[in-house]
Amino acid sequence: MSAEMCAIDLARLQALLDGINRFGRNPATGGFNRTGFSETDMAVRRWFADQLAADGLSVTTDAVASVFGRFGPAQGPCVMAGSHLDTVPEGGAFDGALGVAVALECVRTMRDAGLTPRTAIEVVATAEEEGRFGGMLGSQAITGQVSQDWLDAATDADGVRLVDAMRACDLDPQLVHSCTRPADSVRAYLELHIEQGPTLEAAGIPVGIAHSVSGVCLLFVQLHGVANHSGTTPMNMRADAFAGLAEVAVTIPSLIAEAGTEQSRITIGKVDLRPNFPHTIPGDAEFTIVLRDTDEDVMRRLARQITETIAIVARANGLAHTVETKSWLPPVALDAGLVTLLGEQAAKLGIEAITMPSGAGHDAQTMQSLCPSALIFVPSHGGISHAPAEWTEWADIEKGANLMLAALIELTAG
Amino acid sequence: MSAEMCAIDLARLQALLDGINRFGRNPATGGFNRTGFSETDMAVRRWFADQLAADGLSVTTDAVASVFGRFGPAQGPCVMAGSHLDTVPEGGAFDGALGVAVALECVRTMRDAGLTPRTAIEVVATAEEEGRFGGMLGSQAITGQVSQDWLDAATDADGVRLVDAMRACDLDPQLVHSCTRPADSVRAYLELHIEQGPTLEAAGIPVGIAHSVSGVCLLFVQLHGVANHSGTTPMNMRADAFAGLAEVAVTIPSLIAEAGTEQSRITIGKVDLRPNFPHTIPGDAEFTIVLRDTDEDVMRRLARQITETIAIVARANGLAHTVETKSWLPPVALDAGLVTLLGEQAAKLGIEAITMPSGAGHDAQTMQSLCPSALIFVPSHGGISHAPAEWTEWADIEKGANLMLAALIELTAG
Repeated sequence: MSAEMCAIDLARLQALLDGINRFGRNPATGGFNRTGFSETDMAVRRWFADQLAADGLSVTTDAVASVFGRFGPAQGPCVMAGSHLDTVPEGGAFDGALGVAVALECVRTMRDAGLTPRTAIEVVATAEEEGRFGGMLGSQAITGQVSQDWLDAATDADGVRLVDAMRACDLDPQLVHSCTRPADSVRAYLELHIEQGPTLEAAGIPVGIAHSVSGVCLLFVQLHGVANHSGTTPMNMRADAFAGLAEVAVTIPSLIAEAGTEQSRITIGKVDLRPNFPHTIPGDAEFTIVLRDTDEDVMRRLARQITETIAIVARANGLAHTVETKSWLPPVALDAGLVTLLGEQAAKLGIEAITMPSGAGHDAQTMQSLCPSALIFVPSHGGISHAPAEWTEWADIEKGANLMLAALIELTAG
Repeated sequence: MSAEMCAIDLARLQALLDGINRFGRNPATGGFNRTGFSETDMAVRRWFADQLAADGLSVTTDAVASVFGRFGPAQGPCVMAGSHLDTVPEGGAFDGALGVAVALECVRTMRDAGLTPRTAIEVVATAEEEGRFGGMLGSQAITGQVSQDWLDAATDADGVRLVDAMRACDLDPQLVHSCTRPADSVRAYLELHIEQGPTLEAAGIPVGIAHSVSGVCLLFVQLHGVANHSGTTPMNMRADAFAGLAEVAVTIPSLIAEAGTEQSRITIGKVDLRPNFPHTIPGDAEFTIVLRDTDEDVMRRLARQITETIAIVARANGLAHTVETKSWLPPVALDAGLVTLLGEQAAKLGIEAITMPSGAGHDAQTMQSLCPSALIFVPSHGGISHAPAEWTEWADIEKGANLMLAALIELTAG
């Protein structure tokens, strides 16, 4: 039986996603709250494990609460497919949950079609992908990327320690390392996810195949001037920290034009002035610069040039300055073979698809360190994500899910 | 006896200022806390009234707690001299208190020199000048500029009502209108104050004579874009509210060069972004623009042009925008005759002085609506004010105080 001969059941997929989204919905906002290791997060995992078991899959939950349902041979390597069940606070209905639901729907479709894979498929719902504790704990645990130091130190924004949050969920932090899969035990990882950006919708294309995930650099910048009276201080005797910040910000478009690429993104997202009072010249400005590109050399060049600009602007405005690199995640190239395979399968199915980078981080980039990994994107209406207004057309989801199904059949048939 | 023949006693003046500053000092910061209608503010007023009485002056306190000490004839008009005793939170040692102390020191000097003025002098310590409740209540009450509506509505930043704060100090808000002085009862108002700016210090001049007070316009601006993911949203598909704000801010120097004067000041002092998260494009930016000039036509031109710039920048960045004029205080010309008189007296005393505008608001601008009013400035070290580091050299204070003394003698001799 070939991929062209079976297709996912969209109504069943919708019902499964609705089932997941009965957990954590805030009726006041329409947002979803299943933050990692919350009670609701643990409840949805138990419920999802029950669905896997009811479908006859062999269910396991690892030491960080990632849930696995194995379909096919009990022994030997597997192909893994899924995404995460946790959400950001007041997140949308699709981010993560859709990819988990699609993976199970693909298995249900194969089962109903009488397709038994020669290589097992493991449907996975990873834990704590959204970074409540600053990482992607589920996939990092699977791939052996959780250091003891990080585990001991990690806290959330409220100062809750990761190890305490785990213990409150009856999870033993000492067992995190037991999650790690051996090198050859996972043949591939496939994840369907909403794009979380506007590119597919703007292009009118239903499916994107990610060839890479952008690197991310977070710079923390401080400009120190003199807080003074807005009336008595002549313009040419000021050391206005906000004026300096504005001069830095307006150079971003030309910086990207000269030193960046089409994939470059530079964002000043957080700004705090002191004293932040209308009648006082801002004495201090603290702000973040988030810089992304799919090419690490480009990231380095952009970071160096904007740091130089900050120094020049600070000097011209009589400001002291500091620039601190808070984090640096290099870009990740996803598996080229899987990009080709997905492109071929899309063509066979008559699904229009483009290859593209991923601007956001996903479990697939972590999994790539263990096995060939791939990301299938479906369009996000208005590019909106991490918000109740998050939406993807079901016709597009159906196309993305059928591509996932075809790829799983292809990868597990041999 | 002429002005040249007597001079203030600097040590006595210092001791008087120290006496005032025993009230409200925060030893942890070195700042002073005598906010209007606080317990400490009321306590310093009682203490100051006792000093006036001990000096043999006829003491009254009006319905808003402004304190007056009358020297010379009990009947007839007076020349008023003083400033305010209240401070901003964590303010400096000189702002307001110095002018009050100098006025009393001048009277003490005249008394010791056997000078009895033909026109009475009233030393005044005005109430609530720093605008805890958004006005300059003491001088506004003296000049009959307190409306019943404003009185009923005024609140501080914590939502405390002015009328409740007054009642807690045993003051009856119904009696505010009793503070108003008749039109011809005050011949002149003289105030010595720290400059609160860097101009005198930079020029190496000990005394400034203000010819006007800048007008102030407060604009409140909102830019509305779309909060989106900093990684997945291409640069050319953003509606970044902060990028728009930065584009507006950098036009300020050229705007002043083209449409302003040397007295123009434009300050973006308060900025609030939403969501203000490093990895999210700012969807909303709210900010203030404080715009000052000594010429109201210039103020109108600057306000119109920056509003046009905001509209152009908003359109170019895909942002909605609103610009609201929160307040508009026109410039005030102080009395030209008093400026001339102070200049002549300074020359006689051999004190180097320049005329200049006041960038900050003072009781003198309010008093000008009742009587000819004047402001004598002494230098602020580093231009710093409203902060514990506020400082003026005593040698400069002595010069300013002797100019005040000479002017009071001149104005009250006839």
